[in-house]
Amino acid sequence: MQTGREIAERVLAGEVRALARAISHVEDDRETAVEVLRELYPRAGRAATIGVTGAPGAGKSSLVDRLIEALRARGRTVGVVAVDPSSAFSGGAILGDRVRMMRHTSDPGVYIRSMATRGFLGGLSRATGDVIDLLDASGKDVVIVETVGVGQAEVDIARLADTVLVVLVPGMGDDIQAIKAGILEIADLFVINKADRDGADKLESELRQMMALVDDSRPRPAILRTVATRGDGVEELVEAILAQASSADTAARRGERARARARGRLNDILGRTLLRRTIERGLGEAGFERTVERLAAREIDPYTAADEVLAASRDAAAEPARREG
Amino acid sequence: MQTGREIAERVLAGEVRALARAISHVEDDRETAVEVLRELYPRAGRAATIGVTGAPGAGKSSLVDRLIEALRARGRTVGVVAVDPSSAFSGGAILGDRVRMMRHTSDPGVYIRSMATRGFLGGLSRATGDVIDLLDASGKDVVIVETVGVGQAEVDIARLADTVLVVLVPGMGDDIQAIKAGILEIADLFVINKADRDGADKLESELRQMMALVDDSRPRPAILRTVATRGDGVEELVEAILAQASSADTAARRGERARARARGRLNDILGRTLLRRTIERGLGEAGFERTVERLAAREIDPYTAADEVLAASRDAAAEPARREG
Repeated sequence: MQTGREIAERVLAGEVRALARAISHVEDDRETAVEVLRELYPRAGRAATIGVTGAPGAGKSSLVDRLIEALRARGRTVGVVAVDPSSAFSGGAILGDRVRMMRHTSDPGVYIRSMATRGFLGGLSRATGDVIDLLDASGKDVVIVETVGVGQAEVDIARLADTVLVVLVPGMGDDIQAIKAGILEIADLFVINKADRDGADKLESELRQMMALVDDSRPRPAILRTVATRGDGVEELVEAILAQASSADTAARRGERARARARGRLNDILGRTLLRRTIERGLGEAGFERTVERLAAREIDPYTAADEVLAASRDAAAEPARREG
Repeated sequence: MQTGREIAERVLAGEVRALARAISHVEDDRETAVEVLRELYPRAGRAATIGVTGAPGAGKSSLVDRLIEALRARGRTVGVVAVDPSSAFSGGAILGDRVRMMRHTSDPGVYIRSMATRGFLGGLSRATGDVIDLLDASGKDVVIVETVGVGQAEVDIARLADTVLVVLVPGMGDDIQAIKAGILEIADLFVINKADRDGADKLESELRQMMALVDDSRPRPAILRTVATRGDGVEELVEAILAQASSADTAARRGERARARARGRLNDILGRTLLRRTIERGLGEAGFERTVERLAAREIDPYTAADEVLAASRDAAAEPARREG
């Protein structure tokens, strides 16, 4: 067994197997992951991070495939985290759509990893943030986070990146309008993919109308058009992304986002640690489960239940002599 | 100002304005909400709860509109929580699509409320759960939770209900396949809406193939077809929902889900309470923000930062005399 520190050193030395192992430890939420991240978190923060989100069917994976290609042609190394909905079959492995992207895995300058949305959401967002840091610390110049879907969770995950691309396609119907409203706030760049379809002009003018309505001090996101399957518009998109990533405005926003992410991550670790300690010190796992049972049976309300858990922990702390005796 | 207990009494008495107020307090996470829920949580648990999820454009709102109609024709009272992605314009108010549903608002047997996905996810899921309880305690026979989209967050929210409907439409492309894989686990009933379109048979046979692959002890979800805009198949769907809701199998699963929800809710309340107390007792808000700054600047790692916050709180607790002196 390698220690977390050993794994961390090997990740910094660019060993692919160590990186893969570190990511697995993060996914499984193992103790080693904490050791690895203690070493590597301060070494991350150099990569340009790009979030890619958008409705299912928008062609995000094809676009990411092309982005990898174009970034590699510029000599940049690339890490990709593809966040999938959990699957009953594969445990959330690679989607058919992502097979195309896998042609890059023989390139040592590219590392692609799929992650499943198993377990809790907060967990996935945390794990994705940690994986971005690992890829960053391993020396990747660009880290891309691709999500499936446009739910709030996916938006939160895309937001882990410094530059967020929102991918839309012409002619997706009314519900998409609602989605666009929600994602206006997070988009740094809009990509109209499958732009050879009817309705691209209409979609762009709708986007511009929406943006005009938003009273927002930050610069309006650019709107670019691509046909990812043919590679059309990808060069322009990469240029726009790289320009965006190095702009002064992005630096300011990046600071804000970094603080929000740091706060969220710290709150998450603290919340879980405090909860575990409180249960251990007070009711214990079995006692806690009995409280959960009574709550589920609606014999008590959640706030009274919380009071009971806290009181048990406080009482235990107040009687150390008896416990130790 | 009414107290939480007064509001709770009026909700139990069926006052619509009190219900609306209670929901607002839950949304705003106000102290009064805790008082209201302390009273009403033990009075809830009687309603049949139905979650409706599915891809944007699947016609979920039209379907819910028809479900309300059919349930009312059976003399059942109905509460609806429509969970929207946050909008830059409206703060997440009613989508165009839901205007149709609003025709029911003049019916005193129907209460419809839209909720926005502002703030944190855990927050929305918690608030939605609380609103379901409020509608339930107010005496609604059926409570419907409709979500936009099929992200993990939406799935988690639909899961708050005892019976989960997954709405699909024929011909939505490959990415939908991935979604179907993820939602197989949560669906109690599949609805193929817009079933007059080409591809309904293909979609149904794909669903059956997927289900056949899953080694699962629980009964296979039924697949129903509707054309919600015309009301086709809605009667059959309502019958299936009501039969499902009263089945012995559902009762067993309901117990499991209720425990999972109770555990999640209790953890959430405990986590937030413990975090707030730890910060207040130790570093204080300003000190905590300085730690966040150092974390964002990658001067420290998240686990060291958490250790510092916990140590400050522990030291403060160990020196009560100095603090009180």
